Amino acid sequence: MKGMVEESATVQTTGRTARCIARCRELAACTDVPGETTRTFLSPSMHRAHALLTEWMCAVGMTVWVDAAGNLRGLFGTADAPRLLIGSHLDTIANAGAFDGVLGVVLGVALVEEVAAASAALPFAIEVVGFSEEEGVRFAKPFLGSLALVGELDAATLARTDRNGVRVEAAIREFGLDPTELPAAVVSDSAFVYLEFHIEQGPVLESEARALGVVDAIAGQTRMTLDFIGQANHAGTTPMGHLRRDALAAAAQWVVEVERYANECDGLVATVGKVETGTGAGNVIAAEFIATLDVRHARDEARKVAVAHYLEYAETAGAARGVSLSATTQLDQPAVPMDATLTELLGEAKLRATGGPAHTMSSGAGHDAMIVARRLPSTMLFLRSPGGLSHHPDETVLPGDVEAALKTGVEFLRRLRDDSATLARLIANASARRKKERHA
Amino acid sequence: MKGMVEESATVQTTGRTARCIARCRELAACTDVPGETTRTFLSPSMHRAHALLTEWMCAVGMTVWVDAAGNLRGLFGTADAPRLLIGSHLDTIANAGAFDGVLGVVLGVALVEEVAAASAALPFAIEVVGFSEEEGVRFAKPFLGSLALVGELDAATLARTDRNGVRVEAAIREFGLDPTELPAAVVSDSAFVYLEFHIEQGPVLESEARALGVVDAIAGQTRMTLDFIGQANHAGTTPMGHLRRDALAAAAQWVVEVERYANECDGLVATVGKVETGTGAGNVIAAEFIATLDVRHARDEARKVAVAHYLEYAETAGAARGVSLSATTQLDQPAVPMDATLTELLGEAKLRATGGPAHTMSSGAGHDAMIVARRLPSTMLFLRSPGGLSHHPDETVLPGDVEAALKTGVEFLRRLRDDSATLARLIANASARRKKERHA
Repeated sequence: MKGMVEESATVQTTGRTARCIARCRELAACTDVPGETTRTFLSPSMHRAHALLTEWMCAVGMTVWVDAAGNLRGLFGTADAPRLLIGSHLDTIANAGAFDGVLGVVLGVALVEEVAAASAALPFAIEVVGFSEEEGVRFAKPFLGSLALVGELDAATLARTDRNGVRVEAAIREFGLDPTELPAAVVSDSAFVYLEFHIEQGPVLESEARALGVVDAIAGQTRMTLDFIGQANHAGTTPMGHLRRDALAAAAQWVVEVERYANECDGLVATVGKVETGTGAGNVIAAEFIATLDVRHARDEARKVAVAHYLEYAETAGAARGVSLSATTQLDQPAVPMDATLTELLGEAKLRATGGPAHTMSSGAGHDAMIVARRLPSTMLFLRSPGGLSHHPDETVLPGDVEAALKTGVEFLRRLRDDSATLARLIANASARRKKERHA
Repeated sequence: MKGMVEESATVQTTGRTARCIARCRELAACTDVPGETTRTFLSPSMHRAHALLTEWMCAVGMTVWVDAAGNLRGLFGTADAPRLLIGSHLDTIANAGAFDGVLGVVLGVALVEEVAAASAALPFAIEVVGFSEEEGVRFAKPFLGSLALVGELDAATLARTDRNGVRVEAAIREFGLDPTELPAAVVSDSAFVYLEFHIEQGPVLESEARALGVVDAIAGQTRMTLDFIGQANHAGTTPMGHLRRDALAAAAQWVVEVERYANECDGLVATVGKVETGTGAGNVIAAEFIATLDVRHARDEARKVAVAHYLEYAETAGAARGVSLSATTQLDQPAVPMDATLTELLGEAKLRATGGPAHTMSSGAGHDAMIVARRLPSTMLFLRSPGGLSHHPDETVLPGDVEAALKTGVEFLRRLRDDSATLARLIANASARRKKERHA
């Protein structure tokens, strides 16, 4: 591959890298299900994860608390200082790996440790946030932790129930927290920036032999279900052509087009992931074909054009076979751009820290940064996922990549510290935004 | 449509047609499940169907018996005369229509009534057979009745069990028959021809505005399952192209080719009727796609070439995406040509009876004639299926078409009677075949 940069080889790992990885593994042992890593929102094992992180945070002199949404929060510096947030999530899917989410929190603590060990103090405080919920497992809705941080955990969400009929509010109480204190979970007005480290959860960095990627946007998503309705007929006695109304054949033509169009549209990913033919049988022409459609792009316009094309194509492929179409949209989520200033700063920090230029990429998956960006200028740094693997017990990270991320984080803080004009502008912007929000 | 022939309008229906249809409806009331027509192999309601047919057969002077396989058999004429068989099946699928199978038996009785009413005797006997089993519902294997008639009901089949664990042998005993007498169920050596009337169970005749079709072959069938194996990956974080191993996209390209190739290959029908993506999810690239394939053609060579092409194409579509393929064949059943002499004779009879030329077609579905043809020269006449509907309570026939079929049957018998050279040749051929079989 042209311009490939073998980055991991250039980075020497250190004791702090080994400690970060060991901490992730230690947190992975906090599980609701012995023998695997399953740690859902406000479950018993989350107490143990909090206890470990609290210990590490306190050891470096941070003030630690758990907000009413179950987010673990540690402050390094004074409460009234401008505050830089570093966070990610502590919950996992069922039978998860050890790094998805957790690594970003552990790296936040490690950065505080670096700062504490350094001679020069920072002109801002650092708050490390371990979000209580991002995966959406327990209440079939993701981002509960970061939604609380931005003050958007609404009544409808609090009224949701898990599979045991426990409401979010009750889960909060069972965990020992008070849902009436949720307003106090909203991030401090003094916060001015959010930074998140996360594993890529995809194969791109690895395929390009890169350790890190600076995220410039989180892709928007459309999720739909398309229902092709044809007519069941005998597979043997119904000749080919106009006497068939084959829902499956129509849908197959459409699936091919979903792939073909996405292949030719830069940055677009489009996937038909799950299909079914209902009560179909091998010797019966399919009367129905239900298919999911997942379309993502960092630019909403490109995504919308793609979705419109796909729907039109599905109609056409259906009409050619007397097959009708009904489509429902489950999700239409706009893209979330990361803050341009921060993304540039992070790229420069990455170059300075590792000697290699920053690779900028969009995130095809949602992250807490997507929610926090509603309130704070945000940026993300991806670490390569070996084998592209995530949401799997074998999910891992390369020590060299963790070291590179740490170095990039240290450099990012240093540049913020040293570039007082940029820092002042970011703080002023955040303050102006707060004022504007209050008047809105 | 060019050359369309509106046939039904040219045929005046008569009392005998109304009686045939009424008899089918009366038989449809013999059911194991009140409120619908469900009459499986050797079930209690089959006794009632036998009783009705026996009454009609005896009334016209036929000798009636039930063989050890549960086939109802009625002989008109002397036992030692050359014997022409007319038959179809008396069992049904669950919640069936009133004509599939039954109509062929009722028309056989009606033809005997015509012969009995006519002044001139025939130089051969007529045996009407109501096969006990064709649909394969009770023992998940079709054609048990006709297999007994040709002496191919083997030990493995007799050992099969239904969903209640009842073996075929026990079912025979429960019905009041003796399985040790199965050898006597084999058709008489004096039989020389088999004729079957059946509804088309497809839309072809209706689409061409034809009442009847002469069947020249029963299509061969291949039934397979194709398993496309790709790799599950995140639909959002895995870019299009070589990092995806999308089993569903590969399979979709293949499904499109299955249809395209069949559209261009005269007489071929190919259907992917049932598919599944296993544990797939909308936001995960499909790791697996399992699809059925059903391919039929009246010429085995054309079917084999098609199947080979489909497998090769599936491999290619998979290889382009890193998707592997495993295929298993469930059925590879050769085509069964109908007897050319009889088919021609039936076509001439049809022309004489209705004034319209015979439309020759192959049958995409299996029929008892396919089994009986192993032993006797056989031919079939299809009656148009309004709406292409069968295996459905709304399945029906047009009275004009039934009348046309009856007239064609009468004319067929008359031509056999009058064309003594052809009759003698058919009888001699059958006799020679018996001898050859005994020496084999």
